[in-house]
Amino acid sequence: METALARRHRLMGTSRLFYDAPVHIVRGEGVWLWDDAGRRYLDAYNNVPVLGHAHPAVAEAVARQTARLATHSRYLSDTLLDYLDRLTGALPGMESAVLTCTGSEANDLALRAAHALTGATGIVATAYCYHGNTKAVSQLNATNPPFDAEQGNVARVFAPDSLRPRGGSVEAMHTAFTADIHRAIADLAARGRGTSCLMLCPILTFEGLPTLPKGFFDEAVAAIRAAGGIVIADEVQAGFGRTGALWGFEHVGLTPDIVTMGKAMGNGYPVAGLATRADLLARIQEKIYYFNTFAANPVAAAAGMAVLDTLAADHLPAHAARTGAHLAARLRALPDPGLADIRNAGLFVAAELVRDPESNAPDPTRTKQVVEGMRHAGILLSAVGPSGNILKIRPPLPFSPEHADLLADTLADVLAATPPHDGPHEA
Amino acid sequence: METALARRHRLMGTSRLFYDAPVHIVRGEGVWLWDDAGRRYLDAYNNVPVLGHAHPAVAEAVARQTARLATHSRYLSDTLLDYLDRLTGALPGMESAVLTCTGSEANDLALRAAHALTGATGIVATAYCYHGNTKAVSQLNATNPPFDAEQGNVARVFAPDSLRPRGGSVEAMHTAFTADIHRAIADLAARGRGTSCLMLCPILTFEGLPTLPKGFFDEAVAAIRAAGGIVIADEVQAGFGRTGALWGFEHVGLTPDIVTMGKAMGNGYPVAGLATRADLLARIQEKIYYFNTFAANPVAAAAGMAVLDTLAADHLPAHAARTGAHLAARLRALPDPGLADIRNAGLFVAAELVRDPESNAPDPTRTKQVVEGMRHAGILLSAVGPSGNILKIRPPLPFSPEHADLLADTLADVLAATPPHDGPHEA
Repeated sequence: METALARRHRLMGTSRLFYDAPVHIVRGEGVWLWDDAGRRYLDAYNNVPVLGHAHPAVAEAVARQTARLATHSRYLSDTLLDYLDRLTGALPGMESAVLTCTGSEANDLALRAAHALTGATGIVATAYCYHGNTKAVSQLNATNPPFDAEQGNVARVFAPDSLRPRGGSVEAMHTAFTADIHRAIADLAARGRGTSCLMLCPILTFEGLPTLPKGFFDEAVAAIRAAGGIVIADEVQAGFGRTGALWGFEHVGLTPDIVTMGKAMGNGYPVAGLATRADLLARIQEKIYYFNTFAANPVAAAAGMAVLDTLAADHLPAHAARTGAHLAARLRALPDPGLADIRNAGLFVAAELVRDPESNAPDPTRTKQVVEGMRHAGILLSAVGPSGNILKIRPPLPFSPEHADLLADTLADVLAATPPHDGPHEA
Repeated sequence: METALARRHRLMGTSRLFYDAPVHIVRGEGVWLWDDAGRRYLDAYNNVPVLGHAHPAVAEAVARQTARLATHSRYLSDTLLDYLDRLTGALPGMESAVLTCTGSEANDLALRAAHALTGATGIVATAYCYHGNTKAVSQLNATNPPFDAEQGNVARVFAPDSLRPRGGSVEAMHTAFTADIHRAIADLAARGRGTSCLMLCPILTFEGLPTLPKGFFDEAVAAIRAAGGIVIADEVQAGFGRTGALWGFEHVGLTPDIVTMGKAMGNGYPVAGLATRADLLARIQEKIYYFNTFAANPVAAAAGMAVLDTLAADHLPAHAARTGAHLAARLRALPDPGLADIRNAGLFVAAELVRDPESNAPDPTRTKQVVEGMRHAGILLSAVGPSGNILKIRPPLPFSPEHADLLADTLADVLAATPPHDGPHEA
């Protein structure tokens, strides 16, 4: 009898699974997932089902519209236009949109749009970013960098780190970061590429969510624009209420020229896209003819509308702000000396594990053990950051203070059973 | 009061609509679509809803699974593995698969896979092909070529044309085509790119579906492989039963190394992917770490399974072969002298409109008028081909002989009301 794991290997090769003992999930509801043995897990990881797993409003919208019509966008559709009106209305400064199916497609198109708008091809990005999986976008990825990232048009700036700020203070790090942006612009000019854009996750999720003062990016944005480039806010992770604001760029106080979206946009239905100003879209469309068969279909629009409706009706961004603050406070109160820094933007919570509070040296070995321990204790989360030592907690937004307490209590137990690592770390 | 058209322009810019008088579709069922005024249209265009619009098996599968679980593929899922077993079992020679959300993503990954497998970056493609909309893939597109197609690693071969065969006969064209493949390989070698792959729609849909003898591509495939390249069959248009066989590569007698799929795969749910041999996937995964959040989710698998189940249970490929032959015969019997050549591969039917049967000069102006006339007569189809003079007919597969008769009778009337064009053609 072939095990599920063997079958997976035969059919999917080495496609990565979570956890040393992978979880066989069969059902979800709200913040809970159930495995094939009927065991329940608290989901503190999944950001796609922003309203909760199997949310009835989205399930109903997808079912109703799939039974009625699922076609492309070369016919007129009120369902689509109603959604785009609602989406752009919820995006300060944005008037028009292009839908895609994935965040990767949205970022691929956004980079091409930046090229079309500026005539330049150079891209400024942070050192540990992730923006997607197409050939053009994956060159930006610092984690698992692709073998074919030979395009030579990326200039990286260092990733802000609020626990270990470059120069010893947030102010010094801010000065250094702005200087790094200027260096990247000069570098791209010297390579003959020019600066087409800064592509930025506004809350720097892959860098581990550093705590930065509002306005931290103001000089960087001004420098990019002075060099002729545009600013692309990648809201694939931050968007749709997680940070307590509807968008990450609002949370950090940034005004992008293009916003890209994905993940939470359809609560699990594949829908993504970009939004921009009408004048920019007109200039982009002069250069790029874009059509995507599945994108902008009325099922995607119905799912997306259910997400925006429910976020508003249930006040989920405000709920995320409150619950995130509660969870962060609970985690900060844990007595573990290796728990160095708890940061949060609403219900995106990052908890650093270090070897000791003096050195703040990252402890990725213990972090991995804690992630595995939490999984065995029935709570799903993951790790992130340049050193892989930051617990990544980003549950569906209906996560309640009681769920936060369960997570904090369980984490206390798991931390107690998992001492800081004092040997060499795994490669 | 803002019209739907004005609203669309405000929200979506110049995003293209079909027909001079765009159709406002609100509902679909089987081969029929209804507009907002309750008018019914026979859909002879849409290849995505291969089982018919709003097919109950897919609607039920999507509704059921969306209400149960829609998550990514880093957990084990029998729903996913059952589907991949079924999909690869239906693909001769293919053992493993990577799911994506769109055919563009599948082709983007396939081109990277060819690079990973061969170390080469050159791509051989036909002159009028279309393979998708990412930056890497869109460089292949001859129609609406992108402004940023500067990658310089594509060598084109001429598109076979069975009505106007190069050299005057299919045999001479075959010889010329094989020679053109060798020229492309030499060209890519001279450019220092090498030959990574031949990317080919097996039935050459964008070239207008030339009628080619089985084995037409044998020497081309052998030459590509002798040069170290692989063969990618793009089944996004041809796959899932339309040609009368399940796959276009079976229809033309071709054995690819990688198969890419999309469109019909989920009958409207966004699912796509590539399949290959297990040994090739292992080598690809050594070089490329690929993860796609929305792809390989259990809703995609459930939709895909419903498509394969229904294609088999309703014998739709055989039905497509019979109905396609009937429709082609009916069109061939139409007395119009401008109707030069009717070609079909199952229910993909191409009908060329020419100025006169002596010159076979394309008549794109009349073709456009016929497409618009058919729309006003309540039948939706489109035009394709290097000159835009080929009626493109590819209805949902439940299209019956009675639907074919309605199309043929209506086309006779529209042709009669639309004389061949004898002035200069529009640019």
